Amino acid sequence: MSTTVQGPKGLEGITAANSGICYIDGDQGVLAYRGIDIHELADHSTFEEVCYLLWFGRLPNRSELQELKLNLARERKLDASIISLLRQAPKHALPMDVLRTIISALAFYDPEEKVNDHEANVRKAIRLTAQMAYVVAVYDRIRKGKALIEPDRSLSHAGNFLYMLNGEIPSKTAERAFDIALILHADHELNASTFAARVVAATLSDMHSAVTAAIGALKGPLHGGANEAVFRILEAVETSGADPVDYVKGMLAQKKKIPGFGHRVYHTEDPRATHLRRMSEDLGNSSGNVRWFEISRKIEEFIVADRKLNANVDFYSASTYHTLGIDIDLFTPVFAVSRVAGWTAHVIEQLNDNRLIRPRADYHGPVYPNHYLPMDKR
Amino acid sequence: MSTTVQGPKGLEGITAANSGICYIDGDQGVLAYRGIDIHELADHSTFEEVCYLLWFGRLPNRSELQELKLNLARERKLDASIISLLRQAPKHALPMDVLRTIISALAFYDPEEKVNDHEANVRKAIRLTAQMAYVVAVYDRIRKGKALIEPDRSLSHAGNFLYMLNGEIPSKTAERAFDIALILHADHELNASTFAARVVAATLSDMHSAVTAAIGALKGPLHGGANEAVFRILEAVETSGADPVDYVKGMLAQKKKIPGFGHRVYHTEDPRATHLRRMSEDLGNSSGNVRWFEISRKIEEFIVADRKLNANVDFYSASTYHTLGIDIDLFTPVFAVSRVAGWTAHVIEQLNDNRLIRPRADYHGPVYPNHYLPMDKR
Repeated sequence: MSTTVQGPKGLEGITAANSGICYIDGDQGVLAYRGIDIHELADHSTFEEVCYLLWFGRLPNRSELQELKLNLARERKLDASIISLLRQAPKHALPMDVLRTIISALAFYDPEEKVNDHEANVRKAIRLTAQMAYVVAVYDRIRKGKALIEPDRSLSHAGNFLYMLNGEIPSKTAERAFDIALILHADHELNASTFAARVVAATLSDMHSAVTAAIGALKGPLHGGANEAVFRILEAVETSGADPVDYVKGMLAQKKKIPGFGHRVYHTEDPRATHLRRMSEDLGNSSGNVRWFEISRKIEEFIVADRKLNANVDFYSASTYHTLGIDIDLFTPVFAVSRVAGWTAHVIEQLNDNRLIRPRADYHGPVYPNHYLPMDKR
Repeated sequence: MSTTVQGPKGLEGITAANSGICYIDGDQGVLAYRGIDIHELADHSTFEEVCYLLWFGRLPNRSELQELKLNLARERKLDASIISLLRQAPKHALPMDVLRTIISALAFYDPEEKVNDHEANVRKAIRLTAQMAYVVAVYDRIRKGKALIEPDRSLSHAGNFLYMLNGEIPSKTAERAFDIALILHADHELNASTFAARVVAATLSDMHSAVTAAIGALKGPLHGGANEAVFRILEAVETSGADPVDYVKGMLAQKKKIPGFGHRVYHTEDPRATHLRRMSEDLGNSSGNVRWFEISRKIEEFIVADRKLNANVDFYSASTYHTLGIDIDLFTPVFAVSRVAGWTAHVIEQLNDNRLIRPRADYHGPVYPNHYLPMDKR
């Protein structure tokens, strides 16, 4: 006899898997990867170290880190067919649709396409992390009609991405700021895209299917798409010359949601926002344009006071990415450049102790037995 | 103060959404779409009627059905760029990887790519259902170096698919058998691929992202991939000349799982298996080759007696599809040709009363606070 238990809407507050990757305390505003506080990681680590931490469960020693860096650098390449596919994407296509399609197509050229074991999946995690950054940078060059930049394998993951995107070696400040942004976005437990990846992986499908699903979920404005939505507001404020608070009040009067505020899990400040706020200000100061930071700050102060909602990871990543020279519609793809580390870590973890993720639904349809009526009786 | 409730592994037996699409009673072996028993639908309806039922919540009247048939027929077309992408897929690529990539790329050419409202999503459901069949048929022709067959808009969805796949108008028996197979596979509540689609849709991403994710999940051998795995066993039995029961006993002795048996939800016979068993036998008789049915039957009788496991939807779909002239590695894509109706119905339903699907994880990692150690201390 089977019993069904009613779950909360949106599975809010219920656990769907065991995980040793992210520790979150939503009441205290704590986020930690493998138990290490995000503040310590933002202050001291690099994205490459964080990848190792997420995939292998602990910080690497010197030679382990060196090996991972080498492997990530070696995987800075794309099959010519993938470049060709990128060139064929229509100009009007949405960047996240292109990214989803290209990452899916990468399976064709993966040397381990048909292998789904632990060792192969660790290699796929490294490969996909290198490729995600490569694809996003190359895509942006192609759509702008710019010459492609060969990767520089001596640069960090963050530095090489900015180099391939902008065509010049980034300043140390910019490289470090982007590195921290990558660290902050790398994982966040069972967020919707990661959960989608685990649902897919749990059928014993493959890493590319899982990451492709995750990109599709990240695209949504209730998830990764929010950072783009935030900047569209900053831009509208700047263009209209409106007072930021008045603009946002106008949105609220129209019952519009202000993106970048509030979080399912945090009931205090999102610890990632603390760093992104500082980076947004620092980058504004060093670039000589603090306007985006100032607009953001005014909106934040108003929303915190008026709505009792705190800024989340998306709010200050908008002005931060813009100041780093990243186009607005590339913000969510850049989120994927980082989050792929977490997605792949979760797929690996799911497969270590797998069980098909298959919940039930609460049936609210026509009473059974309803009947098939012949056409003339309908 | 937030509280977290521990959910069952794999979310077994817990509800994750309200749904009025499928009624399932796992103890009584009941499956119903919108309350109408699957047996009645298999006996009397068509796939087009079932699509209407899934998308609109009730059976269509004559003119509604006529309009849907016309719309499905009109959408039997593909942008030339998609045909070109299909031609570029390497020969060694896995069919489900190709299907996932192509359905993702279809977003580029969708006239409503950037619209995510109810009306547009109903049109996308129709479009994607027509396109899924078209893509699978064209892909199989291309990879075999055969000339492409223009769709016949006067045929049913089932008939046109078999025609475009095989190049000849199917017999009424084959068309009806395939139509019933499409009806039986069209939906199954929150199975893993449908759940993946809803997780993606709930971020307010788009229909193509949701269906792409679902294809990735369906690929897995614990889900849609099982029908292919079943036929590989039938084939191995036939090739080796082994007794079917001995062959399966050998697999069990090696701790191998026999695909096509047991189900998370049903504790009695899967009601779809009843129809597929009969179809497998009927098609075997009418084609003059009952060998695949007989091997299947012997395996089933042994597993039911020895393991107390019942055949599920995948077990007899293997011999049924083979007898319909469908290649083994196309079985799971053919599952998608049907299930896309359910995926899209669930996306539409999810968006009617949306909430982000974002569960929590049970943390089992290093105790917080773990600390960032400098390199020399690791």
